[in-house]
Amino acid sequence: MADNFTDNIKERYFDWAATALADEDILHAALEKSLADGANPSSVHGAGLDARHTFEAARARCAAALGVKQENVIFTSGGTESDQIPILALLRRPQKGSILISAIEHPAVSAQAELMKNCGWRVITVPCNSDGIVTPEAVIARIEDDTALVCIMAVNNETGAIQPVYEIADAMTAHCRGKRRPKFHVDAVQAAGKIPFKLSHPGIDTAAISAHKLCGPRGIGILYMKERFEPFLKGGGQENGIRSGTENLFGALALAACLERYYMCGKLGESGSESESFAQEARRTAHFIEELKALPYCSLVPESRNPADERFAPGVVQVSFANIPGEVMVRALSEKGFFISTGSACSARKNNRPVLAAMGIKGEKAANAVRFSFSSHSTDEGVQKLLDAVKEIAGRFN
Amino acid sequence: MADNFTDNIKERYFDWAATALADEDILHAALEKSLADGANPSSVHGAGLDARHTFEAARARCAAALGVKQENVIFTSGGTESDQIPILALLRRPQKGSILISAIEHPAVSAQAELMKNCGWRVITVPCNSDGIVTPEAVIARIEDDTALVCIMAVNNETGAIQPVYEIADAMTAHCRGKRRPKFHVDAVQAAGKIPFKLSHPGIDTAAISAHKLCGPRGIGILYMKERFEPFLKGGGQENGIRSGTENLFGALALAACLERYYMCGKLGESGSESESFAQEARRTAHFIEELKALPYCSLVPESRNPADERFAPGVVQVSFANIPGEVMVRALSEKGFFISTGSACSARKNNRPVLAAMGIKGEKAANAVRFSFSSHSTDEGVQKLLDAVKEIAGRFN
Repeated sequence: MADNFTDNIKERYFDWAATALADEDILHAALEKSLADGANPSSVHGAGLDARHTFEAARARCAAALGVKQENVIFTSGGTESDQIPILALLRRPQKGSILISAIEHPAVSAQAELMKNCGWRVITVPCNSDGIVTPEAVIARIEDDTALVCIMAVNNETGAIQPVYEIADAMTAHCRGKRRPKFHVDAVQAAGKIPFKLSHPGIDTAAISAHKLCGPRGIGILYMKERFEPFLKGGGQENGIRSGTENLFGALALAACLERYYMCGKLGESGSESESFAQEARRTAHFIEELKALPYCSLVPESRNPADERFAPGVVQVSFANIPGEVMVRALSEKGFFISTGSACSARKNNRPVLAAMGIKGEKAANAVRFSFSSHSTDEGVQKLLDAVKEIAGRFN
Repeated sequence: MADNFTDNIKERYFDWAATALADEDILHAALEKSLADGANPSSVHGAGLDARHTFEAARARCAAALGVKQENVIFTSGGTESDQIPILALLRRPQKGSILISAIEHPAVSAQAELMKNCGWRVITVPCNSDGIVTPEAVIARIEDDTALVCIMAVNNETGAIQPVYEIADAMTAHCRGKRRPKFHVDAVQAAGKIPFKLSHPGIDTAAISAHKLCGPRGIGILYMKERFEPFLKGGGQENGIRSGTENLFGALALAACLERYYMCGKLGESGSESESFAQEARRTAHFIEELKALPYCSLVPESRNPADERFAPGVVQVSFANIPGEVMVRALSEKGFFISTGSACSARKNNRPVLAAMGIKGEKAANAVRFSFSSHSTDEGVQKLLDAVKEIAGRFN
């Protein structure tokens, strides 16, 4: 570990889906600006108005980067809260009903929905197929008359499987013509900055974005909101009453800059560094998968995943190695200076894999599965060194 | 505005209760350390473990500064969330009941409690007296058999009135001997760092603290929790399951340093810079109040407040000037480079004053009331210049 390579953690870090190592320049600049505009943006004196102006300018930049209107952008404390707010808002309804969620949602959705049962709500779970994908047909078949909210994530955090959320939104609209349509919430935490994704697709009512998955700070995220609704979480009334709490100017400024630098909003195929870096990442991941597929003791999760499979975000690859428990691989790679996870960081300490179980993957194959996740900061050299390390470790057990 | 004085915003800023201008050194140091430990503290690889270690060390420092155990400290996104979590946790109970709150709570408590009615809970409001103080007797008289939670703030954000929360806790314990005692939640957002305050006083079950009132960043706070409870907000399960969301290392580090520098934990009277600066602030406020009381067109809110009145936090002074609407005074002072608020920043744009109404102050006297708030960064010179400006403006109308 004495060469230059190991000095740069970004090259040997393959846990970008857990947290994207922060963009130092963006965070430094955001901190300086937020210190210069240090008053409360809700104070009506000059210093407060200056802070308000800077804060709303950050919102405008976020909206422009996301291709939505300023009033659609609600700043929250992160992805979890952005997922919780639309679910909790159901408690404002006079009638109880059902919430439909996929079997592969993040706990910010699945655990919060589960608790809604305490308040008389039912939870309907839509299974995914063996590739970890939730089809529009599966969603439509399970919508009931009292379904008030449908939650399907855009990209799964463990497998990278891209969910057909545009098609689900369209199918919901067609299915519910003439009837009351459930609201559609999309957890876009693993999609934003990872694949081209348009929040403004018709039929998406709310969506969650987290800054720290986009090289931004922890403690700030966005709830995209197509139309205002009545929230159940209340307080001082900031953010149009949707998310109370003194405005986080540092976070908003940093998130705006991260969205401008890292968000991909349907720009793929256009010229520009963003689409080029995405294409490069896709090519790098295809090579990584190709090399893994050549190893007899290695199975992709799902097995059907091909090197350049467009059904999966190139930033996430889930793999199971024969005879090596996931935690052992994580630790052995860590000793060599490479950082990966098993499933999500949130579940890392709990050792259960509900996403894999939903795909029908159980037992040793699930226990041995690990997640490699990449970013535009990953390099060909870094991935090659990672592959060498993986082969060396897996070779010891096979 | 050409002299040196006006270059230093901290000397002419008197809105510290809205937000305390950040301690630049603390925020810079916290950002550098959080960038160095940039991985997800829940990841189990080496970089994650390093981040976890730093994060838990920040928790330990917070606990030590607050005089409580590490497991009592839950990091949240701020004061509002720290108030919401104990209220929402009531939704985990099989039986509905009542919540008892004071008439002068911050909307993070009062608006959230109000919404609990949608879920079958009742809200009982305890009035304050004409001095803006809630007595233990008033609380005890209103506790009912089904009261599950009592919420009384430690210091009112508009008047600075110190609430007798220790006495209320003791009275609740005595009153409920042999019966099920309601939980007691204390919004300590305006107490932490403003008056000596012991979270660990027996009978306080939960309490809310916000970093940005302590010269820390926005987006981080603490929920003090004497014993673990089952929360209603759920997600990835961080913070012992009480507050989900990827851990905000920058915020936790900054808050730890701010608590060490600015929190007062019963140290008053001991030697040390903290108690000295508090005594200095109390003396400065006494002088400010004395000068105001000498003006015929000026009434303190409440009128009974004396220059060195120990019933009030020295950091907050509420005053009503004859013939000048509060917003006009705020704007006129702002034009002279001095920053104050009317009520809370949260309600500044709404123009209603429920705290003053609860004290029986209505009409012109309420509409003309403004809040001056101070900190250890305020100076004698700054306060004198503020007084001169106030007299000049008020003189125009009187």
